Amino acid sequence: MKAYPFLDNVRKINPLVHHITNWVTIYDCAQVVKSLGASPVMAHAAEEVEEMCGIASALVLNIGTLTAEIIKSMKLAAVVANERKIPVVLDVCGAGATSFRDKMSFELLDTVHIDILKGNFSEMARIAGRQVRTKGVDVGDVNEDLFDIAREISMQRDCTAVITGKRDVITNGEKCFIVDNGTEIMTRVVGTGCMATSVIGTFVAATPGDLASAATAGLCCYGVAAEIAAESAKDPLKFKHTLIDNLHSLTEEQVTGMQKVRQ
Amino acid sequence: MKAYPFLDNVRKINPLVHHITNWVTIYDCAQVVKSLGASPVMAHAAEEVEEMCGIASALVLNIGTLTAEIIKSMKLAAVVANERKIPVVLDVCGAGATSFRDKMSFELLDTVHIDILKGNFSEMARIAGRQVRTKGVDVGDVNEDLFDIAREISMQRDCTAVITGKRDVITNGEKCFIVDNGTEIMTRVVGTGCMATSVIGTFVAATPGDLASAATAGLCCYGVAAEIAAESAKDPLKFKHTLIDNLHSLTEEQVTGMQKVRQ
Amino acid sequence: MKAYPFLDNVRKINPLVHHITNWVTIYDCAQVVKSLGASPVMAHAAEEVEEMCGIASALVLNIGTLTAEIIKSMKLAAVVANERKIPVVLDVCGAGATSFRDKMSFELLDTVHIDILKGNFSEMARIAGRQVRTKGVDVGDVNEDLFDIAREISMQRDCTAVITGKRDVITNGEKCFIVDNGTEIMTRVVGTGCMATSVIGTFVAATPGDLASAATAGLCCYGVAAEIAAESAKDPLKFKHTLIDNLHSLTEEQVTGMQKVRQ
Repeated sequence: MKAYPFLDNVRKINPLVHHITNWVTIYDCAQVVKSLGASPVMAHAAEEVEEMCGIASALVLNIGTLTAEIIKSMKLAAVVANERKIPVVLDVCGAGATSFRDKMSFELLDTVHIDILKGNFSEMARIAGRQVRTKGVDVGDVNEDLFDIAREISMQRDCTAVITGKRDVITNGEKCFIVDNGTEIMTRVVGTGCMATSVIGTFVAATPGDLASAATAGLCCYGVAAEIAAESAKDPLKFKHTLIDNLHSLTEEQVTGMQKVRQ
Repeated sequence: MKAYPFLDNVRKINPLVHHITNWVTIYDCAQVVKSLGASPVMAHAAEEVEEMCGIASALVLNIGTLTAEIIKSMKLAAVVANERKIPVVLDVCGAGATSFRDKMSFELLDTVHIDILKGNFSEMARIAGRQVRTKGVDVGDVNEDLFDIAREISMQRDCTAVITGKRDVITNGEKCFIVDNGTEIMTRVVGTGCMATSVIGTFVAATPGDLASAATAGLCCYGVAAEIAAESAKDPLKFKHTLIDNLHSLTEEQVTGMQKVRQ
Repeated sequence: MKAYPFLDNVRKINPLVHHITNWVTIYDCAQVVKSLGASPVMAHAAEEVEEMCGIASALVLNIGTLTAEIIKSMKLAAVVANERKIPVVLDVCGAGATSFRDKMSFELLDTVHIDILKGNFSEMARIAGRQVRTKGVDVGDVNEDLFDIAREISMQRDCTAVITGKRDVITNGEKCFIVDNGTEIMTRVVGTGCMATSVIGTFVAATPGDLASAATAGLCCYGVAAEIAAESAKDPLKFKHTLIDNLHSLTEEQVTGMQKVRQ
């Protein structure tokens, strides 16, 4: 699989990506979409999410600072997205940390169709029904098989499952991709997971016909941009800023030369 | 018109600028005010906005992530601002994208007095009653006369109308200013429109006697800071950070030497 | 007192710090915790704050953009924190600016136990019952004795009182520390006060046995990181980014060589 053509699609198509997300990383998520050459829109009022989602090419949901009201808006938007057959990406940020997060995640999964379900290992293990204790939104210490859990969720929920971490795993039950791009300093920065989800949302918005490949390409480009950033930026914020800016300047040569994707 | 004396006023008077704004660019809006030498306050609870607005020198409203509750707080604050005769600036961010945004914008315009109404071309065309389709909060592709729409809104709403874009147009119905400062990379950055509104709010807070001139001077200084930033910063986030910092260090020589304002 | 061992504790223990904070500086507060080597979690829904606080090592409350709902969540979380005997830090951001802020601050102080009460001079003077007029969230111009007010609050509320400013004062009624680290440019940056509170929350999370010393060590490390940042960064945002990154790279030599703490 070549990742660059998917980025090229984003830049050519300039899709609108509707987010209902958290208040911590909301700016970075929007700028990531913009840096990739697409258009972000962040809107969460129940009165307008359906209409906003009606003009978007993908819907990104992130429960990082969820409330009951926000979940209600997420459902309204996702129903429209499902009807319009545009991809819905859900980041189960912090699943496992509280029963409210778990309950709301399952409620979303049970009432609307999520096309791409994404989290880190402990979050996704919890969604798969394992007993896990998430430490806030950071990774727990469970040590089970990445691939099993991804495949399991993908089958249970008829979706593409994405587990991010040192190694990213992406599967729709049939195809399974591994992305080994990225760098250790990402764990020192607040929001790298949320931004990854926005990257995925942007890539599937531009190439909705093959969600697993588009998500894989997105994570690969994001990881390549991170690796280039880590060459010059050794501290967390400087690294984050350079990473986001690299998404804007990323070239075919860089992506093709550095991509580490296996099927 | 000379723009620098208006910036000098901001720095000397250090006005308090009350914002009820969106959750995406709220930090940048606050820092822009601070970098200009003024004091931002962001407060949106219905229980306190009247009192907060009672100690401010201008009120900035931005509907970027509006809810019905936020609009209620905006009205409460604007009533106080109207009574105290301090300028109210409204950014109709995303008008045209959903009927909720349009309805809430018109409701605000019909119940309180807005002194400065600001948006990009497609947003303002919608406020003027044209049929437009805004793609999220980015510019639509309508191609009508900037000046007509600005003048029309200014007459309809008895306000100063500001349309920002490659070329900024500012008119109070009598005087009309054009600002040609700024740079293309601003369109790659989330929040340049919101920040422009906060700049306007800060400048009219310091010089409330001539709103059109103060808004023009603000946009000119902002555009000059952007042009200087673009010389050294080629990527979006680096550009944004440098732009905000340049507002802090902007000199009389820079503003006077680079200002491109016509009446 | 040596400040560095307290930072070393943070890095070794990696505590989880639960925040219920404002929408302006929420990202920076989270990243400050992360840069120090700890884990932030920001969650404000009434349905989950008790459980989230149940896995945290400290609770940080900041009323910067308070609403009645947020105050309700703060109380729920603080009750759990009190039961679990983990430290609760309250930043009375903007106290004195509106009667709502004052009323909610007193309501919090009267219904739950606050372990560390923190504000700038005018905010804390208001909490101590003085008549003050805060200009938004910036410092007022009252000129009373720092030490008297800190001691008074500490006795009234049976807490550690922290007043930040050019000189930071920290007292638990018995011990009193003065921190003279820091730099003038901090007053040009939105959020330096909020970040200081998150630093304090992180340090007391790691060393809960001696709150006054841990808070002092935190403010000292923060001030040292700021002084080092000011050497290379002359503009507000560049300074802020460098400050946050310096918290990540701060060495024992830097802290010990530059600390200005007196008892």
